[in-house]
Amino acid sequence: MTIVVATAGWSPTEWIDGLHAIDPARDVVAPEAMTDPAAVDYALVWKPEPGYLAGLPNLKVIFSLGAGVDHLTSDPALPDLPVVRIVDPDLTRRMTEWVVLQVLLHHRQQRAYDAQQQAKTWKSLRQWSAAEVRVGIMGLGVLGLDAARALASFGFPLAAWSRSPKTEPGIDCYSGEAGLAPFLARTDILVVLLPLTDDTRGILDARLVDGLAKDGPLGGPVIVNAGRGGLQVEDDLVAALNDGRLAGASLDVFVTEPLPATSPLWHAPNLTLTPHVAAESDPRALCRYVLGQIQAFERGEPLQNLVDRTRGY
Amino acid sequence: MTIVVATAGWSPTEWIDGLHAIDPARDVVAPEAMTDPAAVDYALVWKPEPGYLAGLPNLKVIFSLGAGVDHLTSDPALPDLPVVRIVDPDLTRRMTEWVVLQVLLHHRQQRAYDAQQQAKTWKSLRQWSAAEVRVGIMGLGVLGLDAARALASFGFPLAAWSRSPKTEPGIDCYSGEAGLAPFLARTDILVVLLPLTDDTRGILDARLVDGLAKDGPLGGPVIVNAGRGGLQVEDDLVAALNDGRLAGASLDVFVTEPLPATSPLWHAPNLTLTPHVAAESDPRALCRYVLGQIQAFERGEPLQNLVDRTRGY
Repeated sequence: MTIVVATAGWSPTEWIDGLHAIDPARDVVAPEAMTDPAAVDYALVWKPEPGYLAGLPNLKVIFSLGAGVDHLTSDPALPDLPVVRIVDPDLTRRMTEWVVLQVLLHHRQQRAYDAQQQAKTWKSLRQWSAAEVRVGIMGLGVLGLDAARALASFGFPLAAWSRSPKTEPGIDCYSGEAGLAPFLARTDILVVLLPLTDDTRGILDARLVDGLAKDGPLGGPVIVNAGRGGLQVEDDLVAALNDGRLAGASLDVFVTEPLPATSPLWHAPNLTLTPHVAAESDPRALCRYVLGQIQAFERGEPLQNLVDRTRGY
Repeated sequence: MTIVVATAGWSPTEWIDGLHAIDPARDVVAPEAMTDPAAVDYALVWKPEPGYLAGLPNLKVIFSLGAGVDHLTSDPALPDLPVVRIVDPDLTRRMTEWVVLQVLLHHRQQRAYDAQQQAKTWKSLRQWSAAEVRVGIMGLGVLGLDAARALASFGFPLAAWSRSPKTEPGIDCYSGEAGLAPFLARTDILVVLLPLTDDTRGILDARLVDGLAKDGPLGGPVIVNAGRGGLQVEDDLVAALNDGRLAGASLDVFVTEPLPATSPLWHAPNLTLTPHVAAESDPRALCRYVLGQIQAFERGEPLQNLVDRTRGY
């Protein structure tokens, strides 16, 4: 019942220690310490080397550390095994905190007030009520729904766009190719919580920016992306921020991470940038989640939050 | 049935226009345009000249523009008439937006990330969960309760302190002189929504700062004040920010407004400052509120949200 923890660019120690702290009897190893690949039943992975998982002949379940699974589905040799996504209340809450913070930062013109503070300028700016600022959420999974619930409590009129049709109380739901244009046209602040798939790669481009509401109260549309960097065409976003087609943006994810020092995003106007920390989860909570699923699986119960590999999320 | 609109340092035009738009038949005037003081039944006021209201012999009700009424109770000649406070859902929502934004800004270390962005530094900082950050609210009126409800939804452990004992589900309630020390000792982020009275003037001083939790996750306590500037001993707050007894602060109100250019608050470390805009309400919404109360009063119904002048709020 060995668990292997393969986390590229990230020490596995805290995961190994965290799992041991909850279940001391279980064998938990890093790839380097693994002596018998055939003994491995479970893999906890983050960006494993392509082909690595195919070398574990008795593997039963793959746990993806993080909400997205594109780091796995990009492996052409990914074994045909259940892939469990981390759906953790702690991770969801952290993501919602970040999204609400960034939406309020733009809605309340905090960056303009920051500049005024810097210049010792005392001046009140016209403040629209939340009821006048239309928020649109791309991606209506667990994270999108929780962010929607939190934003709705402030009174923002909410819409969402998803690949397949959905119905949610209090949310104006759009879907598919045909639903994208009308969704964008009524959106002042776009919150992006999409998975990265072949369909969504580069979706945040100049065309999308030009489709957002132009007549909104914020002087232009705003994009808040905590999904995946690969959704972004970053040159397009920089150009739109520079020429005012975008009034602002908050980005937590980037095509290349860490963001290279040469990127023009660092100093783009009215852009708030955080280093992929929107939903850095507490390892203790994730360890409890993974062991809980393993124990249920060993009792013969179904796994939760399985990835649909044909959809890629 | 004349209404006089006396708003010091603030043009009465939008109020007069706003009231006329709803009730064109009613006589609404600025003090300069008032020909007969005896014709005035209602006064909408913000910081009226001391003694001004005493010169209106048939005045029936005083409406205070803004949540606080210290600008009225400081008038020694204030007539013994009902004083109605503005309690407007729009104003409450705006205040809660500002409070949640500022609490999340500190909780999510946004200012540290801002500095990293400026320096093109990619580095994740240890992020505590909301369940580990104790928020305390001073003042449990309409505004305090709504802020508490919103903050509770993020999972912050909440306590509140008020003058008189209160009980609210999900909030650890402290009250009075004896309750202050234990309330402060368990508080990492202090949200201040107190009225300004003889009892609360200068309450945010060095002694209060030193009473806040020292062992919290944020590296020190944080103060968020949207109550009244007169609650603050500003030299004490600047000193505490400079020597690290306070890890941060967000202030929307100041002893002297506009804040003088000479104030050291403009550039105090980890201080976010906004120019008394946390709950600038929409004049249209306030006009509806005031006329609704006047119409109810003229039908013989009781006035809502009356100020208790012995308490001062």
